Amino acid sequence: MDKLTIRQPDDWHLHVRNGSMLRSVIGHSARQFARAIVMPNLKPPVTTVAQALNYRQEILDALPEGSAFQPLMTLYLTGNTTPEEIKNAADCAHVYAFKLYPAGATTNSDAGVANIDAAYPLLEAMEKYGVPLLVHGEVTDAEYDIFDREKIFIDRTLSRIVRQFPGLRIVVEHLTTAEAVQFVESAATNVGATITPQHLLYNRNAMLAGGIRPHYYCLPILKREHHRQALLNAATGGNPKFFLGTDSAPHLTSLKENPCGCAGCFTAPIALELYAEAFASVGALDKLEGFASDFGADFYGLPRNSGTVTLAKQVWQVPEVYADADSGVAITPLRAGESLAWRLQV
Amino acid sequence: MDKLTIRQPDDWHLHVRNGSMLRSVIGHSARQFARAIVMPNLKPPVTTVAQALNYRQEILDALPEGSAFQPLMTLYLTGNTTPEEIKNAADCAHVYAFKLYPAGATTNSDAGVANIDAAYPLLEAMEKYGVPLLVHGEVTDAEYDIFDREKIFIDRTLSRIVRQFPGLRIVVEHLTTAEAVQFVESAATNVGATITPQHLLYNRNAMLAGGIRPHYYCLPILKREHHRQALLNAATGGNPKFFLGTDSAPHLTSLKENPCGCAGCFTAPIALELYAEAFASVGALDKLEGFASDFGADFYGLPRNSGTVTLAKQVWQVPEVYADADSGVAITPLRAGESLAWRLQV
Repeated sequence: MDKLTIRQPDDWHLHVRNGSMLRSVIGHSARQFARAIVMPNLKPPVTTVAQALNYRQEILDALPEGSAFQPLMTLYLTGNTTPEEIKNAADCAHVYAFKLYPAGATTNSDAGVANIDAAYPLLEAMEKYGVPLLVHGEVTDAEYDIFDREKIFIDRTLSRIVRQFPGLRIVVEHLTTAEAVQFVESAATNVGATITPQHLLYNRNAMLAGGIRPHYYCLPILKREHHRQALLNAATGGNPKFFLGTDSAPHLTSLKENPCGCAGCFTAPIALELYAEAFASVGALDKLEGFASDFGADFYGLPRNSGTVTLAKQVWQVPEVYADADSGVAITPLRAGESLAWRLQV
Repeated sequence: MDKLTIRQPDDWHLHVRNGSMLRSVIGHSARQFARAIVMPNLKPPVTTVAQALNYRQEILDALPEGSAFQPLMTLYLTGNTTPEEIKNAADCAHVYAFKLYPAGATTNSDAGVANIDAAYPLLEAMEKYGVPLLVHGEVTDAEYDIFDREKIFIDRTLSRIVRQFPGLRIVVEHLTTAEAVQFVESAATNVGATITPQHLLYNRNAMLAGGIRPHYYCLPILKREHHRQALLNAATGGNPKFFLGTDSAPHLTSLKENPCGCAGCFTAPIALELYAEAFASVGALDKLEGFASDFGADFYGLPRNSGTVTLAKQVWQVPEVYADADSGVAITPLRAGESLAWRLQV
């Protein structure tokens, strides 16, 4: 197969930041995706509908001329979120979900929920008003090994939430383990999950064997090979619970190549190409459209897109860096300077 | 206890590089240790007695005025090493061991042994002439998970070497796993091991939780907490098989904070202080002297040192960087900018 045309996809998990970084990166997503669920972990976090509408306008203003890209806004669930704000979110046409970060789980998650039991009235309100809960599924206590944190969170917290709020739509974001795949598969249809391209393509050796590679560092962290295999099976298996969410997370190169490098892989410029590579690696390109373009929209109850995109088999080289829109400072993508076998035709 | 005076220690595993880097770092080791086993992984590697003698002279020339520090030289075992060179090494007063790197295991190990079976005549010669074998104990095949590589090497290769060459003195360098501790404990007295300060103080969360920290990256890589506990028990247990080897491995900061950061922690300036912290953490400062100053000399059949060093309980801050001797370019130590509770008195 030399060309693949699929319904235009959406990105159900995306970080676009704000200010200059937003203007630097948004065009890459808008070129590939019709819509994206936009993460609210700014500094300060986006916690109210009013803030989300402002942020949405900032994104629309940063789009390339003529782009029809639609940012789907989310609110950051904190200890101070009120049931009223959840009702406001449900009533707002532009807000699609709340995001639960356990405090300290990833970049700009300091405002996250420290005590999930205390957030139960909020989950109840989300269930009642039909607002989906998006979950960064990791415990954050220092005593837990970084590679165990997803599994422990599922066992200890997420399984309980799913039982107690059977009507709550939940997206377990960026799955990284075989146990998480199993959990989502076993849950009712109101529980879905996103999978990133890096977790389909790489195990932790890519980050740590023969050199330490900060551009492969994200949270939840890359795991060992058998987990990657489980994720690849889930993504390419045609199960509508699993859909595309890049978790593309740009940082200045200097904040990645650093004594304490930030978490996040910047994949927006090459996202579809990476997913195509992963699906092609197991001869499952015919399953890419469902994963990338159908199942996420169905889960969120939104119409599927009407346009199409075409990927061609064509070797090309990923730029070493992209430049920040204002300062020109470098932002390094995943696979910088390496070649890709597929290319989106535009 | 506010002061601790012990017999002057030796470092049984040290990288000092050559040229400008050597001149930048050698003084740190000479200030703390009487002697050090110097690793031969230069570019090109030190493979002959003649090269080792030249390298030794370069080290002596780089020492601070008046220093009595003695570099104990090692040769790099390659596919081209001959039994004659092993005899030469045995006859040379300044060469103390051969180092076995599986090809590709760490920094500048490309020349290492790809097929260990083919090296058996060399191990036989080393056993015959009484030359110790120092082992970097990891498999290097890409399909093995980075965290499994030490255990697999021990199971598959090292256990076989130990069985087949019962008279060969072997140092399993820089232990990182509970399985390696168990292996060394169970072996005969001709098998010893070094342990680094970072493997006593840190588990892999220090390198990967809440940010990716290249200055904590070394090979074999930091493992999970229960391995650290096993290493700490081994080091502080008074068993003469376990002794001090820092594996201090300097790199320019720019080669650590990098898209593909080099392996190695630069600990030479604070090595004894780090070990003291580790031993103090389990109330075992009384065991530091055996580990740091006695057991290594005994294993190598060398006299124990006659001088002493004193550590005082005194909070001080590790410099953010050291400067390369020629260029002034930065070299970042472990614990840069952080404080230490013990300080070597000089």
